[in-house]
Amino acid sequence: MILGACLAVGNPANRFPKRETPLTIDWIAADWGTTNLRLWAMSGRNAVEARVLDRGMGGLRPDEFAPVLADGTAGWPAVPVIASGMVGARQGWIEAPYVAVPCPAIPHLVPVPGDPGGRPVRIVAGVSQAGPADVMRGEETQVAGLLSLSPEFDGIVCLPGTHTKWVRVSAGEICNFKSLMTGELFGLIAGQSVLRHTVATEGSNPQVFLAAVSDAMARPERGFGGLFQLRAEALLGDLDPIEARARLSGTLIGWELAAAKPWWLGCDVTVIGAPSLSALYAEALGAQGVPAARMAVEDATLAGLAAAHRQFLATS
Amino acid sequence: MILGACLAVGNPANRFPKRETPLTIDWIAADWGTTNLRLWAMSGRNAVEARVLDRGMGGLRPDEFAPVLADGTAGWPAVPVIASGMVGARQGWIEAPYVAVPCPAIPHLVPVPGDPGGRPVRIVAGVSQAGPADVMRGEETQVAGLLSLSPEFDGIVCLPGTHTKWVRVSAGEICNFKSLMTGELFGLIAGQSVLRHTVATEGSNPQVFLAAVSDAMARPERGFGGLFQLRAEALLGDLDPIEARARLSGTLIGWELAAAKPWWLGCDVTVIGAPSLSALYAEALGAQGVPAARMAVEDATLAGLAAAHRQFLATS
Repeated sequence: MILGACLAVGNPANRFPKRETPLTIDWIAADWGTTNLRLWAMSGRNAVEARVLDRGMGGLRPDEFAPVLADGTAGWPAVPVIASGMVGARQGWIEAPYVAVPCPAIPHLVPVPGDPGGRPVRIVAGVSQAGPADVMRGEETQVAGLLSLSPEFDGIVCLPGTHTKWVRVSAGEICNFKSLMTGELFGLIAGQSVLRHTVATEGSNPQVFLAAVSDAMARPERGFGGLFQLRAEALLGDLDPIEARARLSGTLIGWELAAAKPWWLGCDVTVIGAPSLSALYAEALGAQGVPAARMAVEDATLAGLAAAHRQFLATS
Repeated sequence: MILGACLAVGNPANRFPKRETPLTIDWIAADWGTTNLRLWAMSGRNAVEARVLDRGMGGLRPDEFAPVLADGTAGWPAVPVIASGMVGARQGWIEAPYVAVPCPAIPHLVPVPGDPGGRPVRIVAGVSQAGPADVMRGEETQVAGLLSLSPEFDGIVCLPGTHTKWVRVSAGEICNFKSLMTGELFGLIAGQSVLRHTVATEGSNPQVFLAAVSDAMARPERGFGGLFQLRAEALLGDLDPIEARARLSGTLIGWELAAAKPWWLGCDVTVIGAPSLSALYAEALGAQGVPAARMAVEDATLAGLAAAHRQFLATS
């Protein structure tokens, strides 16, 4: 089996500290999503080494997960693996059935039978909500990470991404949540619609972005009516592609904020996501008078998987 | 050059009448869009034969248009060709510059230099609007067709499709118009997003569709918030894929009707489009108390190209 990519990431001093005595790898953390598999050799709460493979669940048959994990962890000891994300979906390695809300914001672990590769493997179960119907896989681990780092947290967690989640956390429980297809829609419109010729692939314009957020919140239908206009302005005039991108992302995030208003109005919000995307959400929320705290997605994921590992130790 | 497809369509009696004396082909009508090239051998206002080729402008270099037209019209006499659609875009055969609104709803023709293949070829210019910026290519010909068949028409023409157009026509002029990306968004969401597993590829449920239209018009942001819910309902329950399709199309058409309200409220609307799509729009408008007349898109296109041909005869 050929690895698509296996990159040791850089070792920033604060994450992979140099020590006199080398750290002992005692478990492996895995964030196994649709597109990528991220692996960390862990010593307690410290990451010793990190690898990224482009062998996400979306491209694997059930019998391919074990060899991909063996390749990805080559050279690491036969210690337990804690994995979260789409690896536990029905089309994944094994289905880790959803836990229904309200539920403790502590990862619920499902074992992969037979200790593949001589390592116990546990998959974090996703979380579901019966009404309105909703599901998450992976974000529950990040919420657990936030609570493990801030045990008193009570409020809303916003996890922007392909399917952005708004999660209400209180008294250590996930109470309820809401998913929006904002990131996926942005990708489809900016990358595959007629606007692909018009919208820059990166960059932002904060003033234009915030104006678009505000317009889309006040009159969502006007934002819908303005999408084709971006293309026409580029054809007839000289619309700057970065301005087009800011208007498109502002429109979509504005729709999202309008749809998710009960989730942030008068609430404490913490945004967990990639830096540039989190910055947009924090900016948009700030303009509505909601100061948003931010946490890096990798910190939340690793803290959540570490909490899951402690859970594994306590119950095995 | 190999033809991708060249199909003689059926000859319904009302379109291709059998006559004692065969009709003389005196011009060729061409609807040359992004994906397909539709050709009709015409005798005055009557179509004698029709062909469809999958050689749309989107897949052709400028030097390929002449040979594709030669192949598509093989066996037909060297009579003038009148073409409309994306063939006249900047990336098309030759750029037929936009005519700005307000403008007569009569096709404006731009010659392709050099009578390629021994046939004079004329391309119908698109129509543009400076503010709000907007453009059309092809729909102006259908509007001309409607006016040629109903010279007294005064009101709104709705042309649903990839980029739906709402066109205000008065005193024989295109006054202004508005484009919405409804069809393209539907295609991307239903065909390429996570909802592709959830949404049927055809079928409708009128009651569910109209409820979704009404919800999306009243609170567009709620429709946005409800998109991922379709996927979750399918995963957790047993959402019928046809119901999912009806909710998705109702949501998008509801957004469109909300955005285009000034274009239909209290107006005479004629819908020109493919039968099933036109039916959805007529249903949605009817539920708002707006009775919509309907015209088949091919009838409008042919009538518009015939009006353009008369224009060509009058000026050459």
